Order: sequence, then structure tokens, then C-alpha cells
Amino acid sequence: MIQKYVFGTPFETEAVTARIPETPGRPAYGKIGTEGGFSFEMPLGKEDIVYGLGENVRGINKRGYLYISNASDDPYHTEDKSSLYAAHNFLIVDGKRKVGFFFDYPGVIRFDVGYMDPDVLTVSGREADLTLYVMEGATAYEIVKEFRKIIGRSYIPPKFAFGFGQSRWGYKSQEDFFAVADGYRKNRLPLDMIYMDIDYMQDYKDFTFNREHFSDFPEFVKKMRERHIRVIPIIDGGVKIEEGYPVYEEGVKNNYFCKRADGSDFVAAVWPGYTHFPDFLNPAARRWFGRCYQTLTDAGVEGFWNDMNEPSIFYSKEGADRCRRAMEKYLSTSEEEYSIMEVQKELNALANDPRDYANFYHNVDGKMVCHEKVHNLFGYYMTRAAGEAMEELEPERRILFFSRSSYIGMHRYGGVWTGDNASWWSHLLLNLKMLPSLNMCGFLYIGADLGGFNNNTTRDLLLRWLALGVFTPLMRNHTAAGTRAQECCQFGDTEDFRHVLEVRYRLLPYIYSEYMKAALTDDLYFKPLSFVYPEDGFAPQAEDQLIIGNEIMIAPVYTQNARGRYVYLPEEMKFVKFLPDGSISEEILSAGHHYVEIALNEVPLFIRKGRCIPVADPAEYVEAVNPDTIRCIGYTGGTYELYDDDGVSREYDLETHVRVIGM
Amino acid sequence: MIQKYVFGTPFETEAVTARIPETPGRPAYGKIGTEGGFSFEMPLGKEDIVYGLGENVRGINKRGYLYISNASDDPYHTEDKSSLYAAHNFLIVDGKRKVGFFFDYPGVIRFDVGYMDPDVLTVSGREADLTLYVMEGATAYEIVKEFRKIIGRSYIPPKFAFGFGQSRWGYKSQEDFFAVADGYRKNRLPLDMIYMDIDYMQDYKDFTFNREHFSDFPEFVKKMRERHIRVIPIIDGGVKIEEGYPVYEEGVKNNYFCKRADGSDFVAAVWPGYTHFPDFLNPAARRWFGRCYQTLTDAGVEGFWNDMNEPSIFYSKEGADRCRRAMEKYLSTSEEEYSIMEVQKELNALANDPRDYANFYHNVDGKMVCHEKVHNLFGYYMTRAAGEAMEELEPERRILFFSRSSYIGMHRYGGVWTGDNASWWSHLLLNLKMLPSLNMCGFLYIGADLGGFNNNTTRDLLLRWLALGVFTPLMRNHTAAGTRAQECCQFGDTEDFRHVLEVRYRLLPYIYSEYMKAALTDDLYFKPLSFVYPEDGFAPQAEDQLIIGNEIMIAPVYTQNARGRYVYLPEEMKFVKFLPDGSISEEILSAGHHYVEIALNEVPLFIRKGRCIPVADPAEYVEAVNPDTIRCIGYTGGTYELYDDDGVSREYDLETHVRVIGM
Repeated sequence: MIQKYVFGTPFETEAVTARIPETPGRPAYGKIGTEGGFSFEMPLGKEDIVYGLGENVRGINKRGYLYISNASDDPYHTEDKSSLYAAHNFLIVDGKRKVGFFFDYPGVIRFDVGYMDPDVLTVSGREADLTLYVMEGATAYEIVKEFRKIIGRSYIPPKFAFGFGQSRWGYKSQEDFFAVADGYRKNRLPLDMIYMDIDYMQDYKDFTFNREHFSDFPEFVKKMRERHIRVIPIIDGGVKIEEGYPVYEEGVKNNYFCKRADGSDFVAAVWPGYTHFPDFLNPAARRWFGRCYQTLTDAGVEGFWNDMNEPSIFYSKEGADRCRRAMEKYLSTSEEEYSIMEVQKELNALANDPRDYANFYHNVDGKMVCHEKVHNLFGYYMTRAAGEAMEELEPERRILFFSRSSYIGMHRYGGVWTGDNASWWSHLLLNLKMLPSLNMCGFLYIGADLGGFNNNTTRDLLLRWLALGVFTPLMRNHTAAGTRAQECCQFGDTEDFRHVLEVRYRLLPYIYSEYMKAALTDDLYFKPLSFVYPEDGFAPQAEDQLIIGNEIMIAPVYTQNARGRYVYLPEEMKFVKFLPDGSISEEILSAGHHYVEIALNEVPLFIRKGRCIPVADPAEYVEAVNPDTIRCIGYTGGTYELYDDDGVSREYDLETHVRVIGM
Repeated sequence: MIQKYVFGTPFETEAVTARIPETPGRPAYGKIGTEGGFSFEMPLGKEDIVYGLGENVRGINKRGYLYISNASDDPYHTEDKSSLYAAHNFLIVDGKRKVGFFFDYPGVIRFDVGYMDPDVLTVSGREADLTLYVMEGATAYEIVKEFRKIIGRSYIPPKFAFGFGQSRWGYKSQEDFFAVADGYRKNRLPLDMIYMDIDYMQDYKDFTFNREHFSDFPEFVKKMRERHIRVIPIIDGGVKIEEGYPVYEEGVKNNYFCKRADGSDFVAAVWPGYTHFPDFLNPAARRWFGRCYQTLTDAGVEGFWNDMNEPSIFYSKEGADRCRRAMEKYLSTSEEEYSIMEVQKELNALANDPRDYANFYHNVDGKMVCHEKVHNLFGYYMTRAAGEAMEELEPERRILFFSRSSYIGMHRYGGVWTGDNASWWSHLLLNLKMLPSLNMCGFLYIGADLGGFNNNTTRDLLLRWLALGVFTPLMRNHTAAGTRAQECCQFGDTEDFRHVLEVRYRLLPYIYSEYMKAALTDDLYFKPLSFVYPEDGFAPQAEDQLIIGNEIMIAPVYTQNARGRYVYLPEEMKFVKFLPDGSISEEILSAGHHYVEIALNEVPLFIRKGRCIPVADPAEYVEAVNPDTIRCIGYTGGTYELYDDDGVSREYDLETHVRVIGM
């Protein structure tokens, strides 16, 4: 049962698509305050588990910490952080009471989940304008499915997007991209996509290509396609201020950019230097920006990643002025009066300064809305701009979109990658733990930068991370400029990498099928064990294991120098390993705790009792996966409902695309 | 067998105290290069384990990462860091060959332990001046004991230092300290020490007390002692430049400070503003600085912690000048020509800038030695200054010393705490993993800031961390200014904290006994499982468990919201839990893998088969632990060699202080 409570005058985020009548009065749960902001306080039972909150730090059970929805371009995803790139304000309290809450509030909102007081959940925001959805159900899983039904169907990418992709911030020219393609193809390493980071653009201008580095961009895209590789360019949130640049000029002329209170276009420096931010909340601006993507689709491009859309700000004009004054003060006074540390403090406050977010406005149906009140919608509406335009311009085929920043609602228009993580083993585990939480909030096409974005990776970390990535819908190796080369052919004994990537393609029929079924039935692709085994008292403890679909459990190794790991089986399962020689080992393990050995070049999974999954022969790209080679592994007598379609068209009829196979 | 190879003209660090004749030729292990610096390269077998490197990130097995001995005041102990505060250049390769190496080289030295190439160990430094000790033995453990024998006996603190201590950067006045003492005593929370961070000083001047905040410092110390609490002040590495401040004036007059090439005293800003660095490598300066501690011992102080002795530099005069020029350039040119980001880069390069470390000199027997060549000795020699002075001035009693920065050799003069960690669960685990590595390098009196220094802790994290801290010789709760209050009475249900602290005091006879036996026999207090069970193939994998002495194994919980953990038993053991009602549960567990439940307010340990350990009744401070209440828990028939002494005098005869008890 879903109840909808409206407080004050909420901003219409369009996160929820279902029409739900407003419930009068106050919810039966929690104590609500609306004086001087919004507050919600609810006691937590000692054993209550709190699920949800999507892209966030910490565990699947969010208890014991403070989470702040405040889309932030902060690349240090350490345990003490409370904000990443997204705002996913849906959570479930699962105990004697089972209740879900969606705080549809696009400003900064805080979730103290037993942080200051272990036994109290407190949610608070600066304004008392929001819509609160309260959902009851027999289980946490049922509440999630209820919620998913009201927010609309999750985005479905083209099938090629389930292949493996290579990326690096630093690839510049077509030669760089061809060299990457060759590195993969010559080593028979499967590959479907190469992502183009900011350097492909001319001076970091959206919807341009660098003229020096690409002699003929459409020809380059075509040549890549001949190699069965799609190039996936990045699009950034800010539009460079440059006379003669059409996107800039059209935006200024039509008032499509966010404005200061005085009506001037707001200025923020990001990669291109000073830019304006498109006002994605303005439907006309949104439509205009979305249609700009056509420049690239016309050149043969079939997918994009939207970045810097928190929106990230390196510094604003106003911030630079503050620093200038601080420097002048320092240079004209003594060190004792005004220390150099004060200047440093000002400079380090430049990036993503809340003062800047309070300093520009969106035009929403003629009303000026301060950005800080709707801060968390920027990435959502940027991706919506692109998604809506492409639905109109490309009705016959799917276009790949994923975004760094997001809000619930954006899951209908694209996926997300989880931003600028690091080559840390702890981020492999964090990656795993985020997956079901993101699914709960509607985001199905998801993945982290495998191997880690910041810092140097190591061979073992990348191999272990790829073995998790085999199961994430978005499977991408990506790294930052200045770090060690991270392509799969850079570490010696390349056959180990080939093997792990091949497992992805062998499992592709299953992964695609499970993705499509989850999307089309508003279900989860990744589930916590506790959702599948609600009666199992230990299942909520096994946070480093996940269920995919109804068939398999994954339990990746995430510890350096470990030869294996502990795993908990709520029921008997078949322990399956894809071995480096191409064979598959199977061993029945009884319910309970086990230590399983898993070598660096093996990919493990567990098949649930009585089930089976399809496995195909290896292939070097998605289109080469041969459906005739599909056979089932698992339990004899098991059957599986295999979904398949052309992977391109936007017709998604579940009935006609499913067939039952078995062993 | 130990061999000593000398390359070039090494600086005499006095890390090694044994007289070992130089071995002619080159070592039988590794390929050594001396052209353009020092390099050592050795292949690693696939299964080789690499132990050692003391205070460092990552696991007990150091394979797969790059470690750089470069004492650094960097509070972000993330996985990608290669340097913490210490330089512990001892490591062991344990495989078919078992060999240890001590690179006695006080400059910056790199250990690539299978980082760039998983199968190669590379050690390199900029100068080819070093002494290399090569040690062979039947086991890694034997090699450690060989090494420990040549570096001299580990530091022994007074017995009170094995009590629990509370600290916070932010306690200022005597009222603050009395309030902390009252918080503990009124709640019957055991406590032996309160640490005084920088604010107790007058303007951060070493060997002073703030006149406003302490009406009568000796009286304050005395009143604390009446409460059975010692106050332990901090001493920083830099001496404030201030006319009339005797330490400054004496240092300048006698040329006791580090100098620039032109003979002027080097200037670096730290907490007091601009300071000079005492030249601890100059024996006269060392003796002078050590005797300054007497100001505080005369006031009744019995222990110190030495900080900021990497040495930490906020900025130098030269660095400030570089920034001034950058600011001037920015203010006089356009943003396009010289961006504000360039100024920011300059400012963020100020702290601990290698250019500054290359810019000052030590006077070693009349020879000017550039600091960068001996950078890693500063904390060692500062603590040596204090230790040597107190051996002379206080021959009848032990004085507590521990330091942030260290080099092997310093273990004879004091302990270490592992610096400015964070309130991260991963740092609880890192704390655990560092312990045996530190022991291998001679550091026995060790501990981390329990609950975490930076960031806000949570109740559960602090409780879990204390349950590890129960076993660390230095058991201290410490946190940074601006973080949530972290004293054990700040979290509600204080009885849980009381119980965990009481377990420390109940185990004190055992902890002290094991510490003393380890120190007096050059042995380890904390051992990896693999040292005790060298034939057990799984033991090296159990990196999150440690053996203490010969009797117990510890396996703390380090995961938020976990109800317990997996544990591996190489042999049958008794699983013991100290329960919150004061009782002790015992359960025999068979050899193998287990999942054990451990509540937040329980302290677990495992007693090895056939052994027993002494347990006393709880007490509120060390002197109140009543030896008459000691009884043994564990296996019937087990015996234990209990060491005890007066805890004060510097006479440490093992024979006369050991008695056998049993059950």
C-alpha cells in the first residue's frame, strides 16, 4: 500500500510516474516536523535493517551512518564521506515493521540512519516542501517492487552495451583509439566499446571533435564499427563560452542557460575554462540540448556518457574574486595578521562551493527556481534531455546513455556508473555493495570503473575486479590520466584476462535475459540474499554476496593476496568455476558456511538448487555470441526462461521474447 | 646467519647495535646495482610471502604493492598511499628460500614488492650509500628473531602505560582535563592516563604550560595522580621562534638548530608559527633537547608523546615566497594565461615539500649532512634524545615515551602510535594488520588511535575498536578537534564501554607479562598465525587474526553491522568471550573454519590447546589490579609463566620475575 503525503509546495521532480492520490493527514510512521525545515524521526528496533539509498558509501544495510543526498564531484570515496554523485532518497526499514519511504525532495537532504543515536532514524532538509511516499508490504522486497512500479520502467540499453568496454581519460587521437582496439583484437581479448573521454573534443566543447586528432570523425566511427567496436563519447554538463561556437551562441540567444539573480548567465569554470550551464529544468532548453546529441549520432555514434553533471564546478567568477581578494590581503599584510593558510583555505573552497549553487537559477515555467533547491536534479534532467530527444529522433533503435549524477526518475532515461572511484580493494567491495541498493532505486544499467579510476591499479586487483564486472550490466575498465596503463593487455600473461572477459561473453545470454526480465517486470537484477531468503537469519549478514535473478549467487574475492574467501549458502548450491582452460568445474556444496578457493584467473558463481543457467561459447563481441552454442549448466531437470530479442528495437514484449530451456 | 654488506659511504644510523663484521663481495640474493643510485632486484616465487616493513598500509603479506620509506605527516591513510610516518626497512621473503633484508638507509627508499611486476621485488634509493644486512634462517620467524637480536632490546615502558588512556586534540585547560577524569571516574570507567595534546602549551612552545589554563601545573599533575591518573603531554618537533623563550634562545646561541647551506637557521612553520628544528643528529643538541624534558618531569610528569617529528612542515619561508610570487603573477595576468588552479597547486605543495627537506642540514661531527639524506631519522633521534636524557636523569624509574615518526633503532627508546588515522572500519583492520609487522621491526609498545582520530566515530566502531585495543600494549582513545566527543561516556549505555575496558584490566597481568617476556627475549608480542603454525597451508591466509605470546589468538570484528565473523583455527582452541555481565564463556572449537557470533559488548579471544592464561578481577587503574585475584582460564592442566615486577624500576631480570601458575 502506498500513501502520498504532501508538505508545503514541493518541486515537481517527475520521479514518480504513477498517479497517486494525496493521503490526508500525517503518516503513521515517524514524527514529522515542518518548522524551520523538514524533519522526520523514527525509532529503530535493535535488529532493524535499513535498505536503500542507492549510490552510497558503506554497506547494504545502511545502519550506523550519515548519508547526505548532495550530488558532489568528489573523487575521494572514503568511508567518512556522506555524499557521492547521486541522490536516491528511497529507503526501507525492515524489522517488525516493514515500511519504505521515498522523500521526493530535490535539495540537499540528510539521512541519519542510527549515526548519532544508534536507535533513531532522522531525515531532515532545509525546506519543508516535499512529497513523502510511504509504502508498506509483507517484506522489504515487496516494498521495493511496489516502489519500482510507481517510478516507471527502467532504462533499457542496446544489447551491445552488455559487452565489455575499455576507457581511459587520456586517449586523444584516432591513433590512440585504434591502438587500443588493436591491443584487444590482436590479443583476442573481447571488446565491444571504447569510451571517449574529454580529450576527443575540440577544446572540451560538447558536440565537437578535435580537428587535429580526427581527420574524419564519421569515417573513424565507421572504421571502429568494422572492427565491431562502438565508440562512446562523453558529454559534459557545462557549455564553453566561446564566440562562434554554435551551442554557446544558441544557448545565450534563447536564454537556455542558468542565470544569476540579475538575469546574467551564470559562469563556472570546468574543463573548457569558463562555461554556462544549460538549464535542463526548462523544457525548451532541455529539448534543444537533447537534439544537440544528433551531431554525434549523425556521425554514427550509438551511445554516450554524461559527465560533470552534479554539476561539477572548478570555480565560479565569484569564487575567483573571493580568492583574488584573499591574495591581495595576504600580499599587503604580514604573515602574523593573515596567514598563507587562509589563502589556501579560500582556494580549496573553490570547487563545488555551496555558495555557487545558491547563486544561480532555473527557469521553470517562467518561475525562477534557485539551483540549491533542485541541485540533485541536474544530472537527471541532462540525461532526460538526451533520452527524450533520442526517443523522438531515433524511435527505431536504442541509444546507450549513462550518467554520473542522478536522481530517482533518471533511471527511466539511462544508467549510471558510480563515478571516480580508486584502485582500492575496498572499492571493489563497495562496488559490490552498491549494486542492489542502486537496483532498488530503479537503476539497473550500472557498473563501476573496473580496476579503479584514480591511482595505479595492480594486476591482481584488476583481475579480481573484472571477475565481479563479469556480472555488472555495465562492464567497463576505466582509469584516469597519469595512472598506469590499465588495458587488459598491459599486465603480462594476457590469457588470464582473455579468459575472464570470455566468461562475460559466455554468460551474456543469461545476463541480458536477466536484465531484460528485471527491467520489464520492475524487478531487481541484483538482490541481497535476505530478499530471496527472508526467513534465513544469517542472510542479512552476508553482505558481500548477491543474488542475480532467480538462479545464481555471486561471491567475488575482494582481498589482496587471498586465495579464496568465505561464503554462506542459505541452501545447497552448485559451486561453479570457469577455469582458465575454458572448462567449467561444478561442485555441490551444502547449506551453511564454506571457505572456497578461487584463483586469480577463475570466475566463480553459485547456482541455486534445482536451477540452471545458459552458457554460450566465447565470442569477441556481442554480435558474435552464437545462440546455437547455448547449453545449460546447473542442476539436471532445471529449466530457465531465456529472454532474447534483436537488442536494438524499442519493442520489448516479454511474452514473445521468452523461451524455456533446460537440462 | 647474518651477513653485512657495505655499499659506498653509509650514514651511521645506529639502528644495529651488534658488532657484525663486514662480508666481502655481494650477497647471494638479488641483483644489485650501484650506478646512479642503489637498486636491488630479486625474483619472487609465485607462492612467496613477503613480511615486514613495519608501519605501513595493506596486509601482513606485503606482496602486490609499492611501499616508500619516507616519513610523512599525511593523515589520509588510504590504500593508495605508499608512505606513512615511519621508515622500517626490514623485510623477509618467505618461500622456498627464506631470507631477510635490512636496508639500513636513512633517506627515501622504495620497495616495489611485486607491484609493477607481480613476480619481482625491487628496492631502490637515490644514493648507493647503505648497509645491507642479509639474514638466513629455517623460518621467517627465526629470521625475525635473528634480526631483533642485532638491533637491541625493545623499549620498556612503566607498567601504568599498559592501562587505558583518553586523549583529544582540543582539551585545553585543567578544567577540561578534570572533566574528562570525572567522566571516567564517575562512570567507573577504568582509566590510567589522559594525554595532553598541543593546547596545553603556551603558544605551542615545547616545555611550557599555558599560564591561563593552568594555575599551578605541578599541583594539577599531583591532583590527577590523586585520582590515579597520569597526564602525558605532547612534545613537538619544532621550536617556536620567539625572543625571550629560553629553548629558542639556547638553541640559537649554541647552534643546536638545523641550518640552511648559508649557515642560517632553517625556518619552518608548524603549530607555533615559524620554528627552528633541533638538530637531533648533533650529539650536543640531542643531549640539550633531551634534558629539556626535565622541565616537565620536575612538574611530576611521567611520560611523553613526541609528535610532528617526520618532521612535519606546514610551510617554509622559501615555500611561502614561491606562493607569493604565484599570487603576484595571477593578480597581474589574465586567467587564460595563468589560472587560479596554478596558484592552488603551489599552495597545496607547501606542506612537507621535498624541496624543503633538501634545503637544510644537520651537523654530524662537524660535517654538514643534507636533511633529505637522513630524513627518516628525525623522529628516531628526537625520541632518542629524550630517552637517553631520562636514562641519565631518572636511572631509577621508567619514563613513558612514544613517537609518531620512527626508524628502526628508535624501538630501543620508545614506542609508536600509528598516527592520524580515521574513524573508518578499514582502519580498525589496518591497525590489526600493522601490529605484527611493527613487532618484527622491534616496536613492541604500539597502538592506534582507537575509535579513529579524524572524522566522527560511531558507537559501534569505537566498541569494536576497543575490543582490539584491549590487546594492544598502547591502548588509547584519541580524536581530532572538531570531531564528535569520543570519550567512553559519550555514547549511552556506558556499561558496555565499562565492560570492555574492564576486560583490559582483567587481562593486564597477561598483557604485561607477555610484553615483558617479548621485550626481554627479543621476541614478538603479536605474531602472524603462519609464524606459529609454519606447516599450516592456510595460516598465511588468516591475516585478520593474530597470535599473542604462546597462548592466545585474537580475531576482532571489524565490519559494521556484523554480528560476528569467520575465524580459522589451525588447531583445536577454546573460544572465550568476556560477557557483559562479567562472566566468561568458554567453548571448545575444533580445528578448521568457523563463524563465531560476537556481540558489540563482548570481547573474544581464543586459547590455544593445552594452554591457559591469567585473569584478574576488574580494576579502575593499573595499580589497583589485585594480583591475589588472579586465576587461570583455558585448558585444565595448562601452565603459564607469569612475569611480574614493580613496573617502575629499570632492572629487568627475567628469571627472578617469572613464576609458573596453572589450572
